[in-house]
Formats: sequence, C-alpha cells, structure tokens
Amino acid sequence: MVDIVVMKAVSADNQAHADAVRKILDENRIVGLNLVSSPGAGKTTLLERTIRDNPDFRIAVIEGDVFTDRDASRIEAAGAPAIQLNTEGACHLTANMIEAVLPKLNLAELHFVFIENIGNLICPAGFPLGEHKRVTLLSTPEGSDKVQKYFLAFNTADVVLVTKMDMAEAAGFDISFVRKELEAVNPKAKFLSLSALTGQGMERWYEWLRSLKAK
Amino acid sequence: MVDIVVMKAVSADNQAHADAVRKILDENRIVGLNLVSSPGAGKTTLLERTIRDNPDFRIAVIEGDVFTDRDASRIEAAGAPAIQLNTEGACHLTANMIEAVLPKLNLAELHFVFIENIGNLICPAGFPLGEHKRVTLLSTPEGSDKVQKYFLAFNTADVVLVTKMDMAEAAGFDISFVRKELEAVNPKAKFLSLSALTGQGMERWYEWLRSLKAK
Repeated sequence: MVDIVVMKAVSADNQAHADAVRKILDENRIVGLNLVSSPGAGKTTLLERTIRDNPDFRIAVIEGDVFTDRDASRIEAAGAPAIQLNTEGACHLTANMIEAVLPKLNLAELHFVFIENIGNLICPAGFPLGEHKRVTLLSTPEGSDKVQKYFLAFNTADVVLVTKMDMAEAAGFDISFVRKELEAVNPKAKFLSLSALTGQGMERWYEWLRSLKAK
Repeated sequence: MVDIVVMKAVSADNQAHADAVRKILDENRIVGLNLVSSPGAGKTTLLERTIRDNPDFRIAVIEGDVFTDRDASRIEAAGAPAIQLNTEGACHLTANMIEAVLPKLNLAELHFVFIENIGNLICPAGFPLGEHKRVTLLSTPEGSDKVQKYFLAFNTADVVLVTKMDMAEAAGFDISFVRKELEAVNPKAKFLSLSALTGQGMERWYEWLRSLKAK
C-alpha cells in the first residue's frame, strides 16, 4: 500500500523551491534525475529494471501522476522506496512538491533520487525541480518526428533516451533522423538508445549513472 | 507549403467560443470531431488513411501542434485541406483558435472537420472546442494502465479508439482490462480498436463516421 500525497502546483517561485531541493540533494550527496516523457514511453519500466539490475545503487523514486498510485506500487515491488505524488489534474510537477516530500526519504543512505514526472512532453519542460540531470525519453512507437515538434522537452534535456528499441523496426523508427534533429536542437545532450525489455543498451545507461554517483 | 497560424490561448470564456464554433458547424451541417491523445498515438496516421479510403467524405483538418507544420503537410499530401495552428508552448487548443480559422475553410462543401489537438493526454480534456464528438486515442504501446491514470481524457470521450492494434501483442496490451476500466470511468463511450497500418478495424470507424454525416 502506497501513501499518496496530493499536491497543488505553486509555480510563482518555482526556481526558489528548485534551489532548495538542489541544496538538500547536494548536502546529502544525492544525484537527482528528472524523467520527462509522453505517457507510456517507459519511464517506470526503465526504473524497475535499473533498480533490479543494480543492487549496489541505492535508489528512491518520487512518482508523479495525475491520478492513481500504480507507478509507485511497481517501484516498491521492484525493491526501492517510492513516494506517490498525485497532481489531480495538473500537467507537471513543481519544485515545491519535491521539496515537501524529500524529507520523507532516508536521505543519508541514498545515491539517486529519480523523479518520474507526469506523462507529458510539453508542460514539465518549463519547470526545473532542482534535479542535477534531466532525462527526456522518446519511445520508438511514438515516431521519429518528435524532437522538433516537442522542442522544449528535447532542448532542455541533459540526456535523451530512446526507449523500446525492441519495437523500433515494427514502428519504422529512424534513429539517425532523431539524432540529426537532436544535434540541431541540443548538441550537448547525451544520446542513448535501449530496451528495458530485452536489456539492449542498458549497460551504457548504468555506466552513465555510475559516473554521476557522488558517494 | 502550409500556412502556419500562431495562436495564443484565451481560456477565460472558452465555452462562449466553443458555442460559436458549434453554431458555425451546425449552420453548415458539418460534423466536428476533436481528436485527443498522447504524442505519437497515431492521430495523423488515422486521418491520412481515413481521407485516402473515403473519397466520398469531404474532410478538412485543423492541426494543432506546439511547433512545426509537419502534420498539416501530411494531411495535404493525403488529399485534404489542412490548417496548421502552432501554440508555441501552450499544451492544448482553445475554442477561440478554432473560431478564428474556421472561416478559412470552404464550409459549404465539407462533411467533417477534424481538429487534431496537441499531443497531450491531460490538458486538452478541460477545453471543449465546439466539437460534436470527442475521440480519445490510446495506442497499444502506451500500455493498458492509462484509463484511470489519465482519467479526464477518457471520462470526457464520446469514442475511445485503441490504435496500433498491429503492435498489441508485442506491447503486451490487455484490451479487456482497458475495456473494463473504461466501463467504470465512462460507460457510454463507444469503444473501437483498429490499426491504420494494416486496416484492421477501420471499417467500423468509417461506419461510425458515416452515421454522423449530416449532409
């Protein structure tokens, strides 16, 4: 049974709350990651496998959803602590929500806090949550034309993860087109492709996470 | 080459603008449909095939995107007139945008105006556009757990279309679970499943459209 915290967005001074979140993370040498994508792009599945494959990573997850505690239940079943935030209509998380729930976690013990944002490729892009790195996911069935169409989600990413590579061929997904568009929109972004179902490409994702670990 | 109309949302009196849109549609005996889904769920592909398979349907499309005119170009290539609306950041269309561009269409000739909303399963649900029917799409790779998670998009739908049925098996999609959840959330919604790639289920969609035709 997951506790659900119902939150209201307070965007007026989002940056001040984001700074406060960053301070708490840094004081505890925790790496914070903000996962942004469309609904069903595979954020929770990525986290489930990351937790199961890496018992040496001490991970907690803050799950953002409009309604339901489904994702937090999946994370707990995978073996990591999870906090479920429900926005009850709001289309993105805000930093005040993260600041309010961080103290519920056992911060001294954690390496990583993943924040799974609301499934939405538009609104979350404008709201930093105090994360160190923003990870934007694009699943292959969504199509190769999304980087320019959802410019801000890709322009503000530190890493772009192409997910569901096992479905790339069936979806007619053109990864070289995506890479080319990303180079125009955000040349500094790291670009990884993987399948959390088959395991393809997961090791490079884990290597990158390992390189960020601060304790 | 597609004309792009850049629009700002004016939500204060959205309902008044929606009423004005409905009046224009009714005066011209045009059926208006508002397509709502996640990015990449297949709205444009559905429309392309619907246009190509039904030369007797006189269709126009109002394409909503945050950026780019990609979708309107695809619709024009499929043989129907299209108007591209760019919201430049806004996460849904509003009725004032539709009211402003409807007069650009040859209304006397049309049977259907499809409004392809911004790819977003959250924000568009709260903004009626004057449509007669709202169609919410759920593509099988997004997963079977979305009806409760994105409650409002499904609760406000007249039709729920499960798309990309060709990928259902690879995605482990459980259509009976989706149908069961939809019966709880919105028992009056029509429920159809199809693949615009293989053609599976398209005839039932066309039959439903034919039943709505007003001239």
